[in-house]
Amino acid sequence: MKETENILANSLYLGIDIGGTHTVFAIVGPKGKILCRGGIRTTDYSVFFDFAKALRKSVEALAREAGINITCIEGIGVGAPCVNALTGVAEGAVDLPWPSPVPLAETLQNVFGIPVGAANDANAAAMGEMYYGACMDYDDFIMITLGTGVGSAIVADGNMILGKRALAGELGHSIVRYDSDRMCSCGRRGCLEMYCSARGVVLTARKMLEATKEDSSLRSIPSDTLSAKDICLAASAGDKIAMDTMRFTGEILGEACANFTAFSSPEAFVFFGGVARAFPYFKDAMIESYRRNLLWVYRDQVKFLQSDLPFDDAALLGAAAVGRRAALKTFCPTC
Amino acid sequence: MKETENILANSLYLGIDIGGTHTVFAIVGPKGKILCRGGIRTTDYSVFFDFAKALRKSVEALAREAGINITCIEGIGVGAPCVNALTGVAEGAVDLPWPSPVPLAETLQNVFGIPVGAANDANAAAMGEMYYGACMDYDDFIMITLGTGVGSAIVADGNMILGKRALAGELGHSIVRYDSDRMCSCGRRGCLEMYCSARGVVLTARKMLEATKEDSSLRSIPSDTLSAKDICLAASAGDKIAMDTMRFTGEILGEACANFTAFSSPEAFVFFGGVARAFPYFKDAMIESYRRNLLWVYRDQVKFLQSDLPFDDAALLGAAAVGRRAALKTFCPTC
Repeated sequence: MKETENILANSLYLGIDIGGTHTVFAIVGPKGKILCRGGIRTTDYSVFFDFAKALRKSVEALAREAGINITCIEGIGVGAPCVNALTGVAEGAVDLPWPSPVPLAETLQNVFGIPVGAANDANAAAMGEMYYGACMDYDDFIMITLGTGVGSAIVADGNMILGKRALAGELGHSIVRYDSDRMCSCGRRGCLEMYCSARGVVLTARKMLEATKEDSSLRSIPSDTLSAKDICLAASAGDKIAMDTMRFTGEILGEACANFTAFSSPEAFVFFGGVARAFPYFKDAMIESYRRNLLWVYRDQVKFLQSDLPFDDAALLGAAAVGRRAALKTFCPTC
Repeated sequence: MKETENILANSLYLGIDIGGTHTVFAIVGPKGKILCRGGIRTTDYSVFFDFAKALRKSVEALAREAGINITCIEGIGVGAPCVNALTGVAEGAVDLPWPSPVPLAETLQNVFGIPVGAANDANAAAMGEMYYGACMDYDDFIMITLGTGVGSAIVADGNMILGKRALAGELGHSIVRYDSDRMCSCGRRGCLEMYCSARGVVLTARKMLEATKEDSSLRSIPSDTLSAKDICLAASAGDKIAMDTMRFTGEILGEACANFTAFSSPEAFVFFGGVARAFPYFKDAMIESYRRNLLWVYRDQVKFLQSDLPFDDAALLGAAAVGRRAALKTFCPTC
């Protein structure tokens, strides 16, 4: 198996990121090097099969131009909204122009004749980190995406934990405070997402601004336009309330990660997304809170990592990694 | 693989439960039928290899007596304190008479010439439920043992989640209340164990008795001798405070299970242990609280089950199931 994995690590993969308007793709080489990239308009095709054929043409043209033999591509990975990683079917994706359900993986596999895997954003990001990013040395880790929401993907013994309906890993919707006044978009209160997403960070800053009269550069920004980016920038400039906000965000995240550790005992947590770019401003508080809340048996075993995939290429590299996984599965179906 | 599993399901397994004083074992047939059982004194052997040889002799004699051909045993499972399920080695087990580390699995495998697996209590119990008990239809489930402590084992896609050091699945030490005054034996406050173990149930009842002047049969029991069993018995007799105690226990358990669901999206939770015998008295409150705290995507997908292994044989059946797993691994190392 190790030998197969080594061969696969040196092969080429096609990563496809299907968005509502545009679809981008890249041929990715060893170590996550993007060899060439292109795109087509998603909305130009009302039938998914036509889209898949156009995609193949575009990939072939791009590969020819770049001097790449398309038969060297061992696997294809596709990231798309509402896709089920087990079936490769997108269901109820209102952003896609094709009638639901869309059999993404099966159709692309027929059109390209290469193994195809599919994944949602967080799972693709985790695969990207495992094959090309910060988690290359780990096969037990938890990826947490801190962006508009809080997403997650859990890798245990090299396998993504998916559950029967590929719905596992919604750690952003773990309830971390049962007495919380923070109402989540899921309809419940006190979800992790309400503390550690961009929106959560803004809610914390607003509360802190209201609770004191302390001077802060954030007071010059109207409360309803205040963004997590403003707060991160203010924290980087040393603004105390902004720094306290990021510290509080880290504390909640540390508590939550301590509980997650009691579940799967990961070797590492890796953070990705807009809020994760402010890693230096919440990392220390997170680790301190993590240690304080951790069951002693897990002490000193876990690394906290920031994603090291290029932010703008992470989706494509994640998709390519899903393709590599699909190729591996053809050799070992139980992997 | 399915064919192999069918053959294995119809084979015999030896389950061994090593305790500090006594070791019991059983030869287990299809559907978890215990065909014969025996035991030797753990403390009679100061060298583990001698213990293993004596165990083999005892098993052979027992099998002969029962008319069982020992070569029909396909796998051996061993449950022991502080055993690492990945290495089969018991480390730091002060209850065992042999110097630590004890290479349980390797030694038994050499002595018996059959694949041997090892597991701690909760993991063995989960395997027992999967092969012989309430979870035969599931391969994504969480086992929660409610006894002196709260233990757990997590099965995802048929595999036990163990982590690199076989320390995963300490859900009893998830912190469920950060403002709790209940100090856990782990040194932290607010662990699930402090609410749902036998000790947790007693703490809840004491609080409830102090908080009201309401009549209760529990008031006739001195506070320092009050046990979870007393409370379960009183609940079954309709005592209001005892019933409220079990309801509160169920509510906390339901909240916790809702968060666990966001992790691995199990098909079922299965409960085992002394407190789990009071399942009828906390089940409704647990399910109601679970639903209220659950992310909507998981709605109506999870079963709540009480273990259906015979209480006194569960450890042996769990160990035999671990043996069946060990046999399966010889056919498919990645399983």
